[in-house]
Amino acid sequence: MGDLVARASHGDADDPLASFRDRFTIPPDWIYLDGNSLGLPARTMRERLEQVVGEWEREAVLGWEHWLAMGSAIGDELAPLIGGGPGEVAVCDQTSVNLFKLASAALSASGRTTIVSDRGNFPSDLYILDGIAKAAGGRLVLLPEDPSPAMVAEALDNDVALVSMSHVSYRSGRMHDAAAITALAHDWGALMLWDLAHSAGSVSVDLDGWGADLAVGCTYKYLNGGPGSPAFLYVRTDLHDKLQQPIAGWFGHADQFGFAEEFAPAHSVRRFLVGTPPIISMTATREGIAITREAGMQAIRTKSVALTSLLIEAVDALDPSLGVSVVTPREPAERGSHVAISHSEAFRVSTALRRRGVIPDYRAPDVIRFGVAPLYTRFADVTSAVAILEDVLTTGAHLTGSDPTSSVT
Amino acid sequence: MGDLVARASHGDADDPLASFRDRFTIPPDWIYLDGNSLGLPARTMRERLEQVVGEWEREAVLGWEHWLAMGSAIGDELAPLIGGGPGEVAVCDQTSVNLFKLASAALSASGRTTIVSDRGNFPSDLYILDGIAKAAGGRLVLLPEDPSPAMVAEALDNDVALVSMSHVSYRSGRMHDAAAITALAHDWGALMLWDLAHSAGSVSVDLDGWGADLAVGCTYKYLNGGPGSPAFLYVRTDLHDKLQQPIAGWFGHADQFGFAEEFAPAHSVRRFLVGTPPIISMTATREGIAITREAGMQAIRTKSVALTSLLIEAVDALDPSLGVSVVTPREPAERGSHVAISHSEAFRVSTALRRRGVIPDYRAPDVIRFGVAPLYTRFADVTSAVAILEDVLTTGAHLTGSDPTSSVT
Repeated sequence: MGDLVARASHGDADDPLASFRDRFTIPPDWIYLDGNSLGLPARTMRERLEQVVGEWEREAVLGWEHWLAMGSAIGDELAPLIGGGPGEVAVCDQTSVNLFKLASAALSASGRTTIVSDRGNFPSDLYILDGIAKAAGGRLVLLPEDPSPAMVAEALDNDVALVSMSHVSYRSGRMHDAAAITALAHDWGALMLWDLAHSAGSVSVDLDGWGADLAVGCTYKYLNGGPGSPAFLYVRTDLHDKLQQPIAGWFGHADQFGFAEEFAPAHSVRRFLVGTPPIISMTATREGIAITREAGMQAIRTKSVALTSLLIEAVDALDPSLGVSVVTPREPAERGSHVAISHSEAFRVSTALRRRGVIPDYRAPDVIRFGVAPLYTRFADVTSAVAILEDVLTTGAHLTGSDPTSSVT
Repeated sequence: MGDLVARASHGDADDPLASFRDRFTIPPDWIYLDGNSLGLPARTMRERLEQVVGEWEREAVLGWEHWLAMGSAIGDELAPLIGGGPGEVAVCDQTSVNLFKLASAALSASGRTTIVSDRGNFPSDLYILDGIAKAAGGRLVLLPEDPSPAMVAEALDNDVALVSMSHVSYRSGRMHDAAAITALAHDWGALMLWDLAHSAGSVSVDLDGWGADLAVGCTYKYLNGGPGSPAFLYVRTDLHDKLQQPIAGWFGHADQFGFAEEFAPAHSVRRFLVGTPPIISMTATREGIAITREAGMQAIRTKSVALTSLLIEAVDALDPSLGVSVVTPREPAERGSHVAISHSEAFRVSTALRRRGVIPDYRAPDVIRFGVAPLYTRFADVTSAVAILEDVLTTGAHLTGSDPTSSVT
């Protein structure tokens, strides 16, 4: 471990993103490794919220003259972080609602009724996709967790309307070969929908470059938009006029305030909007995205790989008798920004770690996730966390502690 | 007008809700009559938002241990204001999304495919209902604006799955006989869904007493929850297990963090939730609801009727040559908390009023809405606004002013 601690020290000394840590408020005495679940607030967050309340106070309903376009405007600000072009991304609703809208639109447009996904996709995504497929008289084909492109290829045929997967698995942390899988979907005339919840703000995403059709994702993890901050959706420009989502709300109307009797969808990404967006939470989202843009995705990804590599090496260096193993792929190109480890007493271990000020999270039945957020996670945090993990397991602290608290994404 | 000004003065002197005005931040020098579009911020709003950011700062992901139940908890706080019981109301998503969920669930459960509404319902509602009916192979039957119960009765038959109307019309301000219309729907085995956007926090609503099945509504008008604040939905308890909404998100799962492969809806109002709620905007919503509870719906409704009566009398007293007429019903039991007047140059008139510091809103082609919000609108505001309206029309200021700004709900 000594070598790794020295390496961590050098990593922090040489970190081009080091100054960003001071831009966030971090619970004192915590080693926070759960930014993959909920990112931390920028120090400017209070000021930004004061500003938007000030707008509400001063302008009241007239504030809508600038709030109205916020969903599209923040979408355009987010777009470069995920390889989207201007007018292809909107911030709106929650991830699950956005997935429902886009996946439903894909099935309606194709006339096909099969959706392909995998057991490593987020459960909420699977529930929604299953519901959509069944409502259309079709089915959701579920591949094993984290399938290879070849396994995806085997599931494809002319009945498949949509392939929908998480780019980075919420559980294992595996990152998929998005360009390859997208191309396979296209070979069979299916559309490809990526869930970027664990990707946006943490790994390189190139939706336009991949040829992706659709994407959704959340802004409250690596984008630090706040608890439950509004989500985003991406629809490639040439698909805007070909897809119609099922929730025909007024924010998607070509002439929102014309109040015509018939719905006529906007000829832009606006057609995928529904209702009035929560402006105060949207403001928090915008601030999180702004800091990420300032840091730049290349620097973030470079640091993320270095942090997860250090974490994996540190866990690998633990005594095998402690019963810990790394679940996440060891090849950097195949993983996102968290490292999942397995242990037979994972829940108790994660609880013991929290008591010691290390905040990972737990995923049933046997996984602990350590998320690194390059904007505020230090290399020394990684080695300290693993040292504490070693101490917990060596002393058996996880077997003797008080009642565990619940674990929440 | 002199008598009315004196009456306004007495009204303000005797107003049991007068002190509530000081609880809000009101743009100085404005007579704000658009609380039916966007309510105003409580003076405590900045402090509440500071508190929730403080929770995020201190607790990070562990904040979910109390945030997780916020949707149901705020729903229970809102319930008494709309005649709902414990466990029947949840705060979540936006009104249009909630309408989509509940109306879709109603059609699925009934096997019928016709929806009945009226042209006075909010356009976004009509778009969504039309989309749902068509997707089910049925149709939306549209009655004329603001139909009588007898007209609704004529549209009903054994094909009707759902009757969905706005309790108070966004345009005319008419309030419907909700108990009577609900009973008619039930006579034909249809479910009744009320949109309470213009009712919640302004008029007496008794969902359980009416026997209503479903309701949705927004919190950013008379409930002062902030721009785009999360909406609410109501499902009568005995219907929870009978209805299943189409967006099977994890917040609706019986065991949200069990991450089972199959979706199993919660046996409660939670099954109508979808994704992670925007906690910062939810906090603002909660504050708006708390103040309304403190004032009490009876006092609010009593003052609302007195304010709209004064407003109607004042408009009626204007010289007929000015071309203004009252659209909203004169019978208090038949109107909500805004008064719509018509004028052939309504858009220019509303713009001229704004230039003079009176903030109503405009609805194409010929309607100006004056909303009174009993928590902060004074009787003197009403008579002052009508005096300024009279001056604008008498001097022709609306014909000579600078370019109008846009009008936004």
